[in-house]
Amino acid sequence: MSQPRRILIVGGVAGGASAATRARRLNEHADIVIFEKDDYVSFANCGLPYHIGGEIKDRSKLLVATPQSLFARYRLDVRVRTEVLSIDRQNKTISVVNHNTKVESTERYDQLILAPGASPIVPDAHGIGSNNVLSLRNVADTDRIKKQVDAMSSQGAQGPPPQQAVVVGGGFIGLEMAEQLADRGLAVTLVERNPQVLPLMDFEMAAMLHEELQAHDVKLVFGDGLVGFETTPTDTSQSDSTETATAAVLASGQTLKADLFILGIGVRPNVALAQQAHLDLGATGGITVNEHLQTNDPNIYAVGDAVEYVYRPTETAMRIALAGPANRAGRIAGEHAASDAANIPMTAVLGTSVVRVFGLTAGLTGLSANTAKRFGVNVASVTIVANHHVGYYPGAKPITLKLTYDPDTQRVLGAQAIGAAGVDKRLDVIATLIQLGGTLEQLAGLDLCYAPPFGSAKDPIHMAAFTALNAVHGLAKFLDADADLSGMQILDVRTAAEIARGMLAGAIHIPVDDLRDQLDKLAPEKPTVVVCASGLRGYVASRVLMQNGFTDVADLSGGMMMRRRAKPNETLV
Amino acid sequence: MSQPRRILIVGGVAGGASAATRARRLNEHADIVIFEKDDYVSFANCGLPYHIGGEIKDRSKLLVATPQSLFARYRLDVRVRTEVLSIDRQNKTISVVNHNTKVESTERYDQLILAPGASPIVPDAHGIGSNNVLSLRNVADTDRIKKQVDAMSSQGAQGPPPQQAVVVGGGFIGLEMAEQLADRGLAVTLVERNPQVLPLMDFEMAAMLHEELQAHDVKLVFGDGLVGFETTPTDTSQSDSTETATAAVLASGQTLKADLFILGIGVRPNVALAQQAHLDLGATGGITVNEHLQTNDPNIYAVGDAVEYVYRPTETAMRIALAGPANRAGRIAGEHAASDAANIPMTAVLGTSVVRVFGLTAGLTGLSANTAKRFGVNVASVTIVANHHVGYYPGAKPITLKLTYDPDTQRVLGAQAIGAAGVDKRLDVIATLIQLGGTLEQLAGLDLCYAPPFGSAKDPIHMAAFTALNAVHGLAKFLDADADLSGMQILDVRTAAEIARGMLAGAIHIPVDDLRDQLDKLAPEKPTVVVCASGLRGYVASRVLMQNGFTDVADLSGGMMMRRRAKPNETLV
Repeated sequence: MSQPRRILIVGGVAGGASAATRARRLNEHADIVIFEKDDYVSFANCGLPYHIGGEIKDRSKLLVATPQSLFARYRLDVRVRTEVLSIDRQNKTISVVNHNTKVESTERYDQLILAPGASPIVPDAHGIGSNNVLSLRNVADTDRIKKQVDAMSSQGAQGPPPQQAVVVGGGFIGLEMAEQLADRGLAVTLVERNPQVLPLMDFEMAAMLHEELQAHDVKLVFGDGLVGFETTPTDTSQSDSTETATAAVLASGQTLKADLFILGIGVRPNVALAQQAHLDLGATGGITVNEHLQTNDPNIYAVGDAVEYVYRPTETAMRIALAGPANRAGRIAGEHAASDAANIPMTAVLGTSVVRVFGLTAGLTGLSANTAKRFGVNVASVTIVANHHVGYYPGAKPITLKLTYDPDTQRVLGAQAIGAAGVDKRLDVIATLIQLGGTLEQLAGLDLCYAPPFGSAKDPIHMAAFTALNAVHGLAKFLDADADLSGMQILDVRTAAEIARGMLAGAIHIPVDDLRDQLDKLAPEKPTVVVCASGLRGYVASRVLMQNGFTDVADLSGGMMMRRRAKPNETLV
Repeated sequence: MSQPRRILIVGGVAGGASAATRARRLNEHADIVIFEKDDYVSFANCGLPYHIGGEIKDRSKLLVATPQSLFARYRLDVRVRTEVLSIDRQNKTISVVNHNTKVESTERYDQLILAPGASPIVPDAHGIGSNNVLSLRNVADTDRIKKQVDAMSSQGAQGPPPQQAVVVGGGFIGLEMAEQLADRGLAVTLVERNPQVLPLMDFEMAAMLHEELQAHDVKLVFGDGLVGFETTPTDTSQSDSTETATAAVLASGQTLKADLFILGIGVRPNVALAQQAHLDLGATGGITVNEHLQTNDPNIYAVGDAVEYVYRPTETAMRIALAGPANRAGRIAGEHAASDAANIPMTAVLGTSVVRVFGLTAGLTGLSANTAKRFGVNVASVTIVANHHVGYYPGAKPITLKLTYDPDTQRVLGAQAIGAAGVDKRLDVIATLIQLGGTLEQLAGLDLCYAPPFGSAKDPIHMAAFTALNAVHGLAKFLDADADLSGMQILDVRTAAEIARGMLAGAIHIPVDDLRDQLDKLAPEKPTVVVCASGLRGYVASRVLMQNGFTDVADLSGGMMMRRRAKPNETLV
């Protein structure tokens, strides 16, 4: 009883250090040990691409905490290069090995916190072990990639044509790496098995990123997967690998020659230790935990990318490998393990995430139409385009905001946003509303900051809520950007100058301001869709039609801007 | 019965145009007329300072809608320079005068929407009518001020010493004008009757703006009010005023010589028409309305700066002269007046507001400690300082965030934030949570965007929530920045280098990392306050003390950074 509580933590990154420091604050006299199998107990994993790209110049900035700093401030006993091999739940011990000394030992615990994280998925394919086929997950990976990129980009502007890089995977890491490698002067090709980047987003939203990538000379290969590499033998005196890859081979048979290949095709949770200890795993393969982050063994906690959190939109458990939830979970687990105090529970997670791709920011929270379909959730959605601050103040940039909601309860379920500025703010506001169970009406009534440099009296968030409420109240009907318009009367209300750049086949052109005087050009009894650039004028026009005897009128959500993205091959006249 | 509904709107700005366009969308066949006594039916009133300052170069950008554009798109009948003189509720008519033709007429209404706005308060003082003593509320004011500023600043860098401007009032308009005039090269003095700018904020928060203003050579005169002007006769062939002010005379007797004087001392609601029609006014002098913006006459609505909204933190009606609520109210009134459809109600207002002052952004939502005291609401508060995105990514800027909450229910009641970036985002998120009745625990659990350029896995919002929850759970106790520390054992846990720049008198210095080894330097039975730079290390240290037999330990909230602002005259050793 006089022995202090002993809290052992497996893994420093992905919530481990967060758990340890919180445990210390709650329990000054506990014996707290972190075991980390790699060299670094804590590092800025989200910052790694930006060190490779040169934005974060100083490598030491990636090392946010060291064993020394954690001992000095928190009296944490940090053991790096020390791997936990197994858990003995009966005796409440773990066996560990020190990779420097090769010495194995057994350590007693009262509470054990697992923060094993996840590892990059590396397919079993020819050439995968080549010295220039690399994943990015830790500092060692970063050093390895950066060394190659530095050598490649040092050839300079007067040198030979830029060296080639292939990035496999269009998720967050893939996009960040594509951007950073292009910024370093490499010729980058991005390969993604799906027909779009960020498959959680809706296609026409992701299409805006495709344009941005192409505008920065990143080549895109969609709908094709990696099957292996063509290789050539390596001078092993120069390298720890026997092969160098010369080209990526795709399922279609296409080969992509390059000098560097980055794999960003996802992660798998590190659950071997949990499995060995017979801890429960969930349906998505992560460790099952309760709201205190306890596994089915109440003395063993698990946090970070290896566990399943409750996903708010479906209220089911799933893996969500994001840093925010990992940090919050670590803190909660550390607090609970170290104390018998009343604790705050882990809240459900929305999967709020954001990525910068050159001049654009893109992100999402909660459900997209894509993920709603996958999870079998019935949603309606609207898309608006509005400036991030008032248009009359210099520097206004459009935000495209797609809102997803439950058409029955009017609860907001998700948002996707893309633009050059202010995207993260809108996502965070909507994420907050969703997490508190808010409705469209509450979204429309939000009292947000406004001064010309920061927003508008009617923020894009309000505009999206107003638009959705118009649909809910029957004042408007919206068709998705990719809707089948065949057989419909198509009314295009843009100006003549806009029309000159192309109009949907068969559309009737009447500028919105002339509509009231030219209603006789249209057939009121026909199902009608109104089209403009972004949807704003279309809505004005549809209200005119609906109040002039037109019985079935809809707007094309997001207008021609989103239509072109949703159906890029549609013929215009 | 076959006659269309007739909706008359008094005033185009401050919600009037918003009401009119919404009314049209709901009712295509209504007869909708806007009467505007000034020259412009709608203009960017929040943009006026930035046109004077030259950021918005093109004056036409201020005119967001014109009678022509409103007719073309919405078939609105806009009559500028036409003033409404009286309302006859019995006969449902108004009498109007056209200031061009001087013709008076009577107009029938079915629904009447009042959007009369508010007018600058102009004290009855000697010299107040001088040609260089000006308020800023409309386009004519803007033209007048800009003409003088253009003349003054055209003297250039090689010319005589900068001409002087005095801005009276440290509210939003006063701050924006001080910034813009300084940017134009004028020597600006800001006069405010209170001891701080933005009197709704807490003093130590506003003090950060004082530093920013002084760093940009704006002179500050606090606790002194305007009583009049010294004047000199004017060449009336050059001016429409007989006098030119040469100095502002303050209550203290101090005189401030200057060439231009801007009054920004608040607004009073334009309620004469409402009073004449015997519409109810509320306790704060604004027109009383219900959630549909109806006055006590259900056929007369009122919106904008002349009405009282429900203020969420107190659930009482008060005037809140902000553009966001005015626009939303206009939209709701227009919808209700034009239709018999189910409508969304006006939600309570938080007073969320933001201002840029040179390199800083400052804003607030809900209650500050100051306003809580004024309204008799019991609140607790915490202050944290955290970077707007991860520190390891270039360009991180600290945000100072003060959170106000109900210590009994743990509901969040308000936030104030100041920093160089990301301030509006944090305020909007917290405003959203407050509007949905959220608690500290919900704030701590928010799932927000994170990537290095946009935030941190633990956002400043989370840090503030964690800190407040520590207080709620008894893990920490916080003293306000201006607390009386006399008689307390003061422990300063900063480094020796930090201490060298000054320490509170009588403080004991032990760096946080050495504390556990030097506890014997302290008396555990004494009430103890722990001090560091911003509060972060102080909290770590206080946890050490609380778990080592110290019975009464508190942290100084916001550390020495906020202490110096709260008590600038306190002697350091």
